[in-house]
Amino acid sequence: MARIALDAMGGDHAPRAPVAGAVLALAELEAHTIQLVGCQSVIVGELEGLLTGEMSALAHVRDRIEVVDAPDVISMSDKPSVALRGKRQSSMVVGLRLQVDGRSDAFVSAGNTGAQMAASKDLLTLHAGLRRPAIATVFPTARQGLVVVDSGANVDCSAEELVQFARLGAVYAEDILGRQNPSVGLLSVGGEPEKGNRVVKEVHQLLRTAGLNFHGNIEGQDVIAGASDRGPIDVVVCDGFVGNVLLKFYEAVPAMMLALLTAHGFDGGALREVLSTLDYSERGGAPLLGVKGVSIISHGKSSERALKNAIGVAVRALESGLSDHIGRRLAASGSPPAPERGTLGPGAVGQATG
Amino acid sequence: MARIALDAMGGDHAPRAPVAGAVLALAELEAHTIQLVGCQSVIVGELEGLLTGEMSALAHVRDRIEVVDAPDVISMSDKPSVALRGKRQSSMVVGLRLQVDGRSDAFVSAGNTGAQMAASKDLLTLHAGLRRPAIATVFPTARQGLVVVDSGANVDCSAEELVQFARLGAVYAEDILGRQNPSVGLLSVGGEPEKGNRVVKEVHQLLRTAGLNFHGNIEGQDVIAGASDRGPIDVVVCDGFVGNVLLKFYEAVPAMMLALLTAHGFDGGALREVLSTLDYSERGGAPLLGVKGVSIISHGKSSERALKNAIGVAVRALESGLSDHIGRRLAASGSPPAPERGTLGPGAVGQATG
Repeated sequence: MARIALDAMGGDHAPRAPVAGAVLALAELEAHTIQLVGCQSVIVGELEGLLTGEMSALAHVRDRIEVVDAPDVISMSDKPSVALRGKRQSSMVVGLRLQVDGRSDAFVSAGNTGAQMAASKDLLTLHAGLRRPAIATVFPTARQGLVVVDSGANVDCSAEELVQFARLGAVYAEDILGRQNPSVGLLSVGGEPEKGNRVVKEVHQLLRTAGLNFHGNIEGQDVIAGASDRGPIDVVVCDGFVGNVLLKFYEAVPAMMLALLTAHGFDGGALREVLSTLDYSERGGAPLLGVKGVSIISHGKSSERALKNAIGVAVRALESGLSDHIGRRLAASGSPPAPERGTLGPGAVGQATG
Repeated sequence: MARIALDAMGGDHAPRAPVAGAVLALAELEAHTIQLVGCQSVIVGELEGLLTGEMSALAHVRDRIEVVDAPDVISMSDKPSVALRGKRQSSMVVGLRLQVDGRSDAFVSAGNTGAQMAASKDLLTLHAGLRRPAIATVFPTARQGLVVVDSGANVDCSAEELVQFARLGAVYAEDILGRQNPSVGLLSVGGEPEKGNRVVKEVHQLLRTAGLNFHGNIEGQDVIAGASDRGPIDVVVCDGFVGNVLLKFYEAVPAMMLALLTAHGFDGGALREVLSTLDYSERGGAPLLGVKGVSIISHGKSSERALKNAIGVAVRALESGLSDHIGRRLAASGSPPAPERGTLGPGAVGQATG
């Protein structure tokens, strides 16, 4: 039985989407419980409204929902560091502290991503050998899904950090996607080892001896294909700038296709159904990899369905023991702790190569 | 009347695709002439075969085709510097030298992109104030096309170089896309000025006072939309690593959509027709921006149709006076010549920020 803390105040559609998502998730998940964290009166009002109204058929889940009061609110525009220091009673901080105190097993939020990352790192702390957590996002492909690490947590990365992303992504592919000996591709501008920017060329050399199933360099089209001409790909390694641009670009493709094809007479309803398989809400949430515990980052736009699926991702992360697995893998890789530096200072590109 | 030199040996489908592309282009372009550059006997054989065979209806274009002998062959895997020094009689070097000598107006190739860039820079030389040329590629969007600069020429870029890409892209949008006062967006991971990696944050500040119609930061989804919530976008500025990954990713979308939708019962023929509007071959070629002259880079996979369209891009670049316009714009911007550095040395990220 897992206890999932859900940020009831996070995201564009809070508190409605998280509260409804929790109800939908519990209707599918036997035995698990959910802690709705946020302004108690708001949550209780929303919850009772749903369970006596349109979701009355699911009123039986009520006894597996706990409401945890957290009166401070972090806005999407708050700076992470300010939010964490100034708002100790926010849903983000309270929700994660439940996990630190052993009263919860996982945290899920569609709120301010930067604040969630910073709070998760501060409160859950990182596995030994890591400097920063990374975001793992599953991309649908023509073949089967692959995981892109990092998809937005770190915009300036050293070669050593990208190698860590490869390790984190490989464990994710094993535990969450169920791939054996996952194939790790390095995103670049050409398949040959000498293609890429300075950091990527360095990463290529490091990955050859990193003890992973290194696929070599891959290109943009291989991400969509889920494979290069050398075979399937399970993990794509890139810095969080490239990963984030690609993720947001890809998310916008279905709507563009829908507009293009309906303008040419194709049936919008049928298209919508097929294209929904590419929708981010099907994936629900991205685990923040590297923290000791479970912190699932959901899109700010998340619907109730997306948050229901994010809770499912949290359950899979718990059932597979993802975090412990990452800790063991990093320890076994024998990678020395990275050199210290301020977490809010400049990125490591210059330090790593200069 | 323009004289276009076409690399008859460049690309996966040479010499057939360039030779046939030249014939198709001349059938549409009155008064222009084409110089087919490469192994003379091979070209003449291919050309005569086509004009007495399947393209015999177009045999009247023959007197506007000149064959220029260039016996050396640059392969796709040749290192650019080696290719240029060692193969002075290649189609790439001979074709560009025609332009230097005043015997041709433009050069088009689907061959080794790195070699074409290096040869164009060496032989045509760059406008004052530029360190490196950039590749401008038009992306189809939900709205109208926009131009992405740089889409692959420079993988390690300084902030100053990205500002130059913005200037180059703005002139391209005016001259080739016909946009007045084009809107220039800076690709990043968030719309706010403080979002981005170190170089992008610096570029944001520089673009505010660069005398351009600066749109501010844009995100991945805005590229697909051709607009952000602040209005339409005509130019996307990014380094060549990000631009190249995005370009190749986007090029692979139509085939993935075709497979996904036909698997769900949609009509493949009708889909193919609509999706072809997203096809790179419709665009044909990307001008190398910044050189004194015209050098059009085509995809290695270019079909005869793609090369026909690339010749059309060369004609538009000539008719609009694109290169001179860029030279005037750079001079008017008063941007001082960038500090010297070795062109084959490391990129400028560390130098610009460290």
